[in-house]
Amino acid sequence: MPRRIFAEFLGTALLLAAIVGSGIMGQALSSDLGVVLIINTLSTISALGVLIWTLGSVSGGHFNPAVTGIAALRREVRLPEAGGYVAAQIVGAVLGVGLANFMFDLPVWELSANERWGAGVWVGEIVATAGLLWVIGALTRTGKGHLGPLLVPLWIGAAFLFTSSTSFANPAVTIGRAFTDTFSGIELASVAPFIVFQLVGALLGAALTEIFYPRKAQPEPLDLPEPVHDAT
Amino acid sequence: MPRRIFAEFLGTALLLAAIVGSGIMGQALSSDLGVVLIINTLSTISALGVLIWTLGSVSGGHFNPAVTGIAALRREVRLPEAGGYVAAQIVGAVLGVGLANFMFDLPVWELSANERWGAGVWVGEIVATAGLLWVIGALTRTGKGHLGPLLVPLWIGAAFLFTSSTSFANPAVTIGRAFTDTFSGIELASVAPFIVFQLVGALLGAALTEIFYPRKAQPEPLDLPEPVHDAT
Amino acid sequence: MPRRIFAEFLGTALLLAAIVGSGIMGQALSSDLGVVLIINTLSTISALGVLIWTLGSVSGGHFNPAVTGIAALRREVRLPEAGGYVAAQIVGAVLGVGLANFMFDLPVWELSANERWGAGVWVGEIVATAGLLWVIGALTRTGKGHLGPLLVPLWIGAAFLFTSSTSFANPAVTIGRAFTDTFSGIELASVAPFIVFQLVGALLGAALTEIFYPRKAQPEPLDLPEPVHDAT
Amino acid sequence: MPRRIFAEFLGTALLLAAIVGSGIMGQALSSDLGVVLIINTLSTISALGVLIWTLGSVSGGHFNPAVTGIAALRREVRLPEAGGYVAAQIVGAVLGVGLANFMFDLPVWELSANERWGAGVWVGEIVATAGLLWVIGALTRTGKGHLGPLLVPLWIGAAFLFTSSTSFANPAVTIGRAFTDTFSGIELASVAPFIVFQLVGALLGAALTEIFYPRKAQPEPLDLPEPVHDAT
Repeated sequence: MPRRIFAEFLGTALLLAAIVGSGIMGQALSSDLGVVLIINTLSTISALGVLIWTLGSVSGGHFNPAVTGIAALRREVRLPEAGGYVAAQIVGAVLGVGLANFMFDLPVWELSANERWGAGVWVGEIVATAGLLWVIGALTRTGKGHLGPLLVPLWIGAAFLFTSSTSFANPAVTIGRAFTDTFSGIELASVAPFIVFQLVGALLGAALTEIFYPRKAQPEPLDLPEPVHDAT
Repeated sequence: MPRRIFAEFLGTALLLAAIVGSGIMGQALSSDLGVVLIINTLSTISALGVLIWTLGSVSGGHFNPAVTGIAALRREVRLPEAGGYVAAQIVGAVLGVGLANFMFDLPVWELSANERWGAGVWVGEIVATAGLLWVIGALTRTGKGHLGPLLVPLWIGAAFLFTSSTSFANPAVTIGRAFTDTFSGIELASVAPFIVFQLVGALLGAALTEIFYPRKAQPEPLDLPEPVHDAT
Repeated sequence: MPRRIFAEFLGTALLLAAIVGSGIMGQALSSDLGVVLIINTLSTISALGVLIWTLGSVSGGHFNPAVTGIAALRREVRLPEAGGYVAAQIVGAVLGVGLANFMFDLPVWELSANERWGAGVWVGEIVATAGLLWVIGALTRTGKGHLGPLLVPLWIGAAFLFTSSTSFANPAVTIGRAFTDTFSGIELASVAPFIVFQLVGALLGAALTEIFYPRKAQPEPLDLPEPVHDAT
Repeated sequence: MPRRIFAEFLGTALLLAAIVGSGIMGQALSSDLGVVLIINTLSTISALGVLIWTLGSVSGGHFNPAVTGIAALRREVRLPEAGGYVAAQIVGAVLGVGLANFMFDLPVWELSANERWGAGVWVGEIVATAGLLWVIGALTRTGKGHLGPLLVPLWIGAAFLFTSSTSFANPAVTIGRAFTDTFSGIELASVAPFIVFQLVGALLGAALTEIFYPRKAQPEPLDLPEPVHDAT
């Protein structure tokens, strides 16, 4: 397995361990769900910042099929690699959730009963994912990628607290969170629309990127496979 | 619509979505109003930092008629453009509040019953807005505008928690928040004095800027319209 | 009044407005004193960071007689100026407390009934103040003063939460806080020992600075008054 | 005592004072254990950031036998010095716990009754310590050690909130925390397995470092004692 695929796997697994684990921790300690959400948010964005920083230079630190998908649309990642990324993210997410459940002596995987359904939360997912892709677009287009470990978690943290859906904004995260029946879970039937609206939001965020940071005219990028360096 | 006007519209809309949305989220989860205020503050300043960073290079990232007004007084922005900014901010604020209410399945717009009246909160608005304009003045005069996404939210966060008015410090925000009957709302009758005292605070903050970071003597700025580059 | 004296006055006044105001806000909203302390801490360190950043280049951003005193001992500030600083800090502290009380419709000044007495809290003040002066010493000796707005509030925030005295660490702050009968107050009789132990801590912090960042041998600093530049 | 040994002693002592003191403070103020954990986490990571920043240039700012042990395995620290570091860390930890207890008028040392036992928390320790050593490895290998005061506390803060063990991740900290019967304590019988799993995690973190940031081929480091500079 190439190192960048492993990075996407490991990063997404640890991100899910943080999201789900901190939700369980919060519920174990507090009966005030506001306090639980604060614990959940602080842990998630801290872990996300560390993971983007440590793995960004290896794989780009996507941990998110919506991010990988937009990068593929922009031909920043080639399709087969994008497929590997997405597979690694989903497998990582499911294993990370299992790790969190195991740490708290819960069944490793369990279906969530947490219904998340309706126009309100779907618009929430659009807003959260659009903002995420827009921030990433701004970072890329202005050459400030080194601020990603700061600005991406800052947006996610804001959106955790102000969107009605608590900002999943990530199809792999959404799938993973179906497998824990705790604070951060989502019932299986709610997963598909979440992913649909996340993809809508991702496209909207990509459009905002074009509006605010248009790419300068460039030589046409080549759509060829990597050159082969064997001396024939 | 020019891109910078759209930036002011979008930034103010998302700022209001964060302020109002996180207040609703807090109230939905917790009965401890201190916890609600912490959620409200953390979400607001995180969103504000991201928005100033992403849109600052486009429009200056004002999102605030008081900021635009002082910039116009200093002739950093010309009057017609300042008018466009303020209109975009107010429209953005009202739509952003509607977005927040919609995300949480509330009536899109609803008048607030939250009275905010009296010498205490008015002085709070003076202090909060004066500090805001002073911080912005310091950033501008010392050529450290890139620290705006850090220092402006830091001040707003402090003032959310220590001023009796919870630091509106922004006429567009004040108008928008009249249209949600939730934690962060303000009844319509309380809006006008808030705006008056915000403008008083803005002038005080501008005065503090002159005291601490006097502008060096410069060639007199020309009060002429932009030169017309047509070859007559 | 010279600008640097005004800076010390204003900075200390706003710092006290933040400390006392956020304590009152917390108590008004929450019956959980842990939540109140979190609100108090977040507001105080955010305001402190902004104030050190905006005023540090003007006056050094002491806002603290213990800091000014150690600077005078090191001959970084001359005695008459140090006296002006300390006077401005104490007057600013008392007025800042009045501002906070007024914002929340309380009597402008009122003596606190909050006893803070005993070996535990006194050791707390030694630890908090020693750490503060040590951090400042490290910043000065390593030429990293621009990190002051980050590291000083970080230390104060840590110490607010882990010292039994909640880290006053500042004689002017201690005097000011005698005049509010709210969360952050201290009864008048407890003030004097707090100041004594703060000064002990300050000396300890200065000693730690010498141990870890010894000053390199230098030409003997002259103990003469400033040269007089009039052509006689 | 060489200055670097004293730095490890003092840094670990103050770290433990922050961990244990803020736990006691939280429990004294709040009956919501989620709030207590937030206070505990914010204080600990703020203090840790300040301590790594102030002492990192003196001793490396380990404050952790697992970190020192991995550094010794990599021959970045020689064995006798590593021994001195570990001894200073353990003594510092025990004295720092005593300082925290004393500040809050508790018996200076008291055995904890807080059982922390089982596969869940042990896996928690593996995850927390592996992440810690991995972050440190990334910082070292990419030449970004100056980000240590930011990224190390960020990881520890995340792990405090998402691992079931609340992330001890440090054998000296674990030993010290046996001597306080408060929020952050650990009963003596639980100490040994914690340390074992911390060392497992440390090795795992070191392995992740090799995978993601392989050391470039270098001239073989010499395993000789320091050259003796006496002119014979």
